[in-house]
Amino acid sequence: MASPEFNLIEQFFTHATTQRDDVALGIGDDAAIVNVPPGQSLAIAVDTLISSVHFPKETPPKAIGHKALAVNLSDMAAMGAKPTWATLALTLPDNDSLWLKEFSQGFSDLAHQFGVQLIGGDTTRGSVLSITVQIFGLIKTDQGYLRSAAKTGDLIYVTGTLGDAGLALKHWQENLKPTTSEVQLLRQRLDCPEPRVAEALALQGLVHAAIDISDGLVADLSHILDRSQVGATLHTDKLPLSSSFKSFISKVDDLTLPLTAGDDYELILTIPQINQKRAQQIMRSFECDFTCIGAIEKQLGLRCLDGNKKIINIKQHGFDHFNET
Amino acid sequence: MASPEFNLIEQFFTHATTQRDDVALGIGDDAAIVNVPPGQSLAIAVDTLISSVHFPKETPPKAIGHKALAVNLSDMAAMGAKPTWATLALTLPDNDSLWLKEFSQGFSDLAHQFGVQLIGGDTTRGSVLSITVQIFGLIKTDQGYLRSAAKTGDLIYVTGTLGDAGLALKHWQENLKPTTSEVQLLRQRLDCPEPRVAEALALQGLVHAAIDISDGLVADLSHILDRSQVGATLHTDKLPLSSSFKSFISKVDDLTLPLTAGDDYELILTIPQINQKRAQQIMRSFECDFTCIGAIEKQLGLRCLDGNKKIINIKQHGFDHFNET
Repeated sequence: MASPEFNLIEQFFTHATTQRDDVALGIGDDAAIVNVPPGQSLAIAVDTLISSVHFPKETPPKAIGHKALAVNLSDMAAMGAKPTWATLALTLPDNDSLWLKEFSQGFSDLAHQFGVQLIGGDTTRGSVLSITVQIFGLIKTDQGYLRSAAKTGDLIYVTGTLGDAGLALKHWQENLKPTTSEVQLLRQRLDCPEPRVAEALALQGLVHAAIDISDGLVADLSHILDRSQVGATLHTDKLPLSSSFKSFISKVDDLTLPLTAGDDYELILTIPQINQKRAQQIMRSFECDFTCIGAIEKQLGLRCLDGNKKIINIKQHGFDHFNET
Repeated sequence: MASPEFNLIEQFFTHATTQRDDVALGIGDDAAIVNVPPGQSLAIAVDTLISSVHFPKETPPKAIGHKALAVNLSDMAAMGAKPTWATLALTLPDNDSLWLKEFSQGFSDLAHQFGVQLIGGDTTRGSVLSITVQIFGLIKTDQGYLRSAAKTGDLIYVTGTLGDAGLALKHWQENLKPTTSEVQLLRQRLDCPEPRVAEALALQGLVHAAIDISDGLVADLSHILDRSQVGATLHTDKLPLSSSFKSFISKVDDLTLPLTAGDDYELILTIPQINQKRAQQIMRSFECDFTCIGAIEKQLGLRCLDGNKKIINIKQHGFDHFNET
C-alpha cells in the first residue's frame, strides 16, 4: 500500500489480530506477502459499509468494527472457505483515537475468533465514515460452495433465524418506543451478526450451493436459482423465527421481513437429500438453528406457500441499499 | 461479496478486463476463487482514492479509473510483483451510466495493459465518490523487494522524473493561468500515472529495497531508511526533472516539489553497486529515465546535498492527505 497517511492501521492493528505462519510480510510495506498451501485455492471477497447506509450512524464503534469484518467472514462461510487474512480500507471524517480504539477492538476480537490476520490497509480522510474490508479464505481446490451448484431435488436449509436484523432496522428507522429487551436482542443481531463460518466448514462435502443472506431470503435465494437455472418452493410456515421476533409478529402476522429483509447474514444452503441426515446430525453440535424451508425444483421461478399450501405473493424483493437511501 | 446492490460491477466489468486461466471463479458469487502456482507467493495491497482528496473533483472519469488501478499497480511494482487480479469497491453519489462507462474504460484499458483481471467488487451509494482497489500480484517466494532490505553501499535510483504531479497539483490548487501545453503534460502525470511494473520486473534479482513515490521522495525514501536501519545521502543536482517541470523552475529554482511532492508514482530502488551496470543496461530498453541520485550509508538519517556538496534543509516532509484536507 502507499504509506498509510497517518499510520493508523499500523498503530491500532499491527499486533491486534492473529499472527499467522502463512503471512511472510504483514502490515507496513508496499504490499503484504502471503503463501497459499498446495492443493488449496484462495477465495477473495470485498464489502463496503457506509455510515447511515449499512448501519445506523449511532452504532457503537466496537459493533461497527465487528460488523465490517463479520459481513466479509459471512462471504467466506457462503463459499465454504476457511478465513485467513483481511485488509482494511478506512475512510474517516476525523482522527478520533477513542473511536478507533473501540473500532479496532471489535474488529480484532472477531479476527481472533476466526484466526484471521489483518495484513494491510489504507486510511484516508473523507466526510463520511466508510469501511471496506477485503477478506481471504482457503478452499480445497474445486470444493467451493458455488451459487451455480444447486440441483433439482436439493433441500433448502437456512441457518439461524430470519428477519431479526430487519425488524431491528425497522424499529430504528421508525423510531419506535419503548426499547424493550426484545428490541435489544434484535438490535444485537443487526449490529453484531455472527458469521456462520464454523457451521459452513463443518458441512464440507455435504453442500451443493450456498449464499449468505445479506439482501433478504427471497433475493438471495433467487441468485442461486438464477445461477443454477433451477426453481424452488419455499414453505413460509417453516421459516425459523426467533422468540424476540415472534413477540412482534404475533400482533401483525406478517412474514415480509423474514422473507425480504437483509442483514441477517445467515446462510442458505442447498443440500442433496442423501446428505440430509448427516448434515442435521453435524449441526446439532452448534447453537444455531438449522431448518429445512423448501426444495429446489426443475420448474424455474420461486414459489412461496403458506401453511395451507396456498401461494403467497412476495411484494418486496429484498433490500437495495442504493435505492433506499 | 454480498450481491452487488445494483450489479454495476457485473454490468460494466465482467468481460472488460483480461480473462486469466488462474481465476477459477470471477465476478458474481459470494467470493472469487483464484489459484496461486507452486513456488509463488501472493503480494496484496489496497489503496483508496477519494474525490477532492486524491484527485481534483473535475478529473475526467476515464483518468480516475486509470489512476485508481495505477496507484495499486505501482505498489506491485514496488514489491517486484507481477500483477494478476484486482477487486474494486466503488462508492458513488449517483448512478450515472456515462460516468461509469468512462471510468470502467480507464480502469479496463490499464488492466488489459498489465494482464490484470477484475475478479470482484462491491458498489455502494455514498455522498462522496470513493474508490478502493485491491491488487494482487505474484512473486517468486522470498524474492519481493522489501523496504527493509536496503544495505550500506547500495546506490539509490529513481525511475522517471520527479515533481511533475506535484507541480500540476499546485497549479490546479492555486488556479494558475494560462494553462499551457506544459501544464497539460504535467497534468497528465498527475491524472494518469504510469506504474513502473515492467521496469521493476525487468530488474528482478538486481534490487535490494524498493518503494513507490506516493508521498514524496524524502518521505518515501525515509520509509526505506527506517525499515532498513540505514541512512543515505541524496545529491539534489541529480534529481531527474522533466523539461515541462524545468520550464517552471528555471524561474524559481526550487526543488521542494521533486523532493517532497507526492503522486509521481515513480520507484525508488536501492541497487548494490555490483549490479549497477546490468541494471542500467536493462533500463536502456525502457522509455523511462533511470537515475542514480545518491547512496545508502551506515550513518542514520537523510542528508541532501546541493551541486556544491552543501547540505540543504528539507522543510516539508511529503504530502499527508489527511492533514491537507
